[in-house]
Amino acid sequence: MDNNLHNELRKEFQLERLILFSDAVFAIAITLLVIEIKIPEIHENVSDKALLQSLGHLIPKFIGFIVSFMMIGLYWTVHHRMFGFVTSYSRKLLILNLVFLFFVALMPFSTGFYSEYSGPDMLRHQLMVPMIFYVLNFCGMGFMNYFMWVYITNPKNKVAEPPVDPLVVRQARARSLVVPLVFLVMLPVAYFTNVIFAAYVPMLIPVILRILKKKIAKKNS
Amino acid sequence: MDNNLHNELRKEFQLERLILFSDAVFAIAITLLVIEIKIPEIHENVSDKALLQSLGHLIPKFIGFIVSFMMIGLYWTVHHRMFGFVTSYSRKLLILNLVFLFFVALMPFSTGFYSEYSGPDMLRHQLMVPMIFYVLNFCGMGFMNYFMWVYITNPKNKVAEPPVDPLVVRQARARSLVVPLVFLVMLPVAYFTNVIFAAYVPMLIPVILRILKKKIAKKNS
Amino acid sequence: MDNNLHNELRKEFQLERLILFSDAVFAIAITLLVIEIKIPEIHENVSDKALLQSLGHLIPKFIGFIVSFMMIGLYWTVHHRMFGFVTSYSRKLLILNLVFLFFVALMPFSTGFYSEYSGPDMLRHQLMVPMIFYVLNFCGMGFMNYFMWVYITNPKNKVAEPPVDPLVVRQARARSLVVPLVFLVMLPVAYFTNVIFAAYVPMLIPVILRILKKKIAKKNS
Amino acid sequence: MDNNLHNELRKEFQLERLILFSDAVFAIAITLLVIEIKIPEIHENVSDKALLQSLGHLIPKFIGFIVSFMMIGLYWTVHHRMFGFVTSYSRKLLILNLVFLFFVALMPFSTGFYSEYSGPDMLRHQLMVPMIFYVLNFCGMGFMNYFMWVYITNPKNKVAEPPVDPLVVRQARARSLVVPLVFLVMLPVAYFTNVIFAAYVPMLIPVILRILKKKIAKKNS
Repeated sequence: MDNNLHNELRKEFQLERLILFSDAVFAIAITLLVIEIKIPEIHENVSDKALLQSLGHLIPKFIGFIVSFMMIGLYWTVHHRMFGFVTSYSRKLLILNLVFLFFVALMPFSTGFYSEYSGPDMLRHQLMVPMIFYVLNFCGMGFMNYFMWVYITNPKNKVAEPPVDPLVVRQARARSLVVPLVFLVMLPVAYFTNVIFAAYVPMLIPVILRILKKKIAKKNS
Repeated sequence: MDNNLHNELRKEFQLERLILFSDAVFAIAITLLVIEIKIPEIHENVSDKALLQSLGHLIPKFIGFIVSFMMIGLYWTVHHRMFGFVTSYSRKLLILNLVFLFFVALMPFSTGFYSEYSGPDMLRHQLMVPMIFYVLNFCGMGFMNYFMWVYITNPKNKVAEPPVDPLVVRQARARSLVVPLVFLVMLPVAYFTNVIFAAYVPMLIPVILRILKKKIAKKNS
Repeated sequence: MDNNLHNELRKEFQLERLILFSDAVFAIAITLLVIEIKIPEIHENVSDKALLQSLGHLIPKFIGFIVSFMMIGLYWTVHHRMFGFVTSYSRKLLILNLVFLFFVALMPFSTGFYSEYSGPDMLRHQLMVPMIFYVLNFCGMGFMNYFMWVYITNPKNKVAEPPVDPLVVRQARARSLVVPLVFLVMLPVAYFTNVIFAAYVPMLIPVILRILKKKIAKKNS
Repeated sequence: MDNNLHNELRKEFQLERLILFSDAVFAIAITLLVIEIKIPEIHENVSDKALLQSLGHLIPKFIGFIVSFMMIGLYWTVHHRMFGFVTSYSRKLLILNLVFLFFVALMPFSTGFYSEYSGPDMLRHQLMVPMIFYVLNFCGMGFMNYFMWVYITNPKNKVAEPPVDPLVVRQARARSLVVPLVFLVMLPVAYFTNVIFAAYVPMLIPVILRILKKKIAKKNS
């Protein structure tokens, strides 16, 4: 094997290692989510009715699990797409990625905390703290994702060569900014109206993304 | 390295990443199964007899662990075989795979829940809820596996090229459908007869698979 | 890329996937060992002395952790060496490997169970059950490892080509058999003499291995 | 594929396997850190105020999580850089790496133990034991890292070819020694002055590293 090819394979392997390490953290965080759902323990008068009831109490936990599973899964696919452009790496990209993974690793805790206190009894008290914690964790993930897009698509940093198509850059940056921004809007909505209304705010995301896509496409044509 | 080869290697690496991410989720779920088996804690009058007795109480847990370990392991080998055909990937395949992995990640909980309530004391009450939960989780895995076979072997989707041999397609689809369908049959059997009888239903699977194999082979010759 | 090279790369990737899946199970099992060591909780009169004392109670746990960590680590290096010979794989190798991994995944439980009941108070009762459980788990790993060596080095199975050097085969098989056999000897020693003596039995392993190595080398020269 | 290329690819794959196994242990240890942060459970009089207060009690846990996450992350990047030089491996490197990973796997316990006993109430008692445990775990990681640098950069061992540039060697060795040494200084500082002062000692690390870098560069020019 000639030396050039060898070096290039080695450099690429180092990049692969960064990616596979990230994948492992994603995979562990996504699988650990389920650990926060404790098996219902009934010691007296076990019956199907009692078990169903205790499963019922776990519904917020399951919803939290599903939402976070899909969210982490989607961020994994974004990470996947993002590193599809990366051809080299730098110390700064390592650090950015590490901080991003920090927020991914925190998700099982935030999801468990939010879903522990989002049952019907809890809605009565209009609890804000668990939602704020969950939203901030989510925004941490979202904004770090945005910073990574900015860093990677900046031709000066030379981590993506050939440079990414400007149209793709603008779309990726805008999309990655919309998600955490909309999540942030949940907080004033919850504060001024009702925590239930806030839970519907993320549904705006696909609508805004579609509008954005058209606008950017239009501007470019 | 010329650009074409580079692109092809990169595309293949992206596919590898999808596969290795799935492998990591499989590996974590399969290893987390054991976490639901708690170490027996005896604080007074510790003796071999007392320890054996408390291990005895864990037998349903061990059976659940072994069954689920082998089931997840078998689905891993199927996933392995399935992606042996895949040469490209699409957004839709990513999503299908993610939903499939969701059910894999849920297995430690379902296994723990089912085996917690499948001891001899519990059989007396003919509890259905934990079995239904386990069966549904298993069917989720099975049907998603079927949908993935359908998607991958559909030549229109262009994720497996050259297209998979039609005989292999028919066999793979039929096999992947039989498993969750037979599991579904457990539920009426448990309801109308006895939860113990239901546990024997899955033994039909190898029989049905053999008949099916012969039929498809016959039809094709 | 011509088709032959492509197919060979693909076949090799499938094999890699089997190996990396095993590595993930090893890595998770080895890291989960630490989960069984619970942080000492002192709620009243916290002091360095009290903390040291509670750390002291954890010593059997730490020893168990270190021993199992090194054992799993060594089996990983054996697995590593073993699959250095494998060039292809079969359904049967997948199953053998899966059963082997089952015993690896069980190690955190067995280690936790054994070390929970191996403190000084427990030695007074000469408890056999936790040791039997640990030894059996360990033997499960050891014998499966032996079966895998037998399967892989059998030229009929065509999973290692060119066939492994007969001297290496004989050494690998003998070595992999000695370890679980010596562990089994722990049980009668514990039963007829003392559980403490039994713990020293594994120290025979390096001695026997050295004698064995010389014998095989002599026979071959 | 000719045999030489095949063997080289295989040798390289074995090395990759060692690296990816290490990555998996890093990834699991870094993600398990969060498991030690338990979700606050309030059963009576749930309110935002009570939740905030219980989150407040978790602050030492979060600080411990962040610090250990970043430390393990940084050691991962060092491991990454170190194995960028490695072109072959030996039994001894496997063992050194395994012992290094042992200390990585122990980090979730040490972090949990230290942060459990580092809240404001605990500082009043000037507890040394948890800090000593954490510092020793950290030094275990640091010194093993140093030994690995020494082993890898020693041309006699032939695991890094071509041999690493002497300037790089000296810098890497010095840097990897400074970190655990400074951590060790925390212990006398805590003992003779105050556990709070000790927590600031690691801030010396970047200063010392900068001075060191200049010295080595000067000496070499």
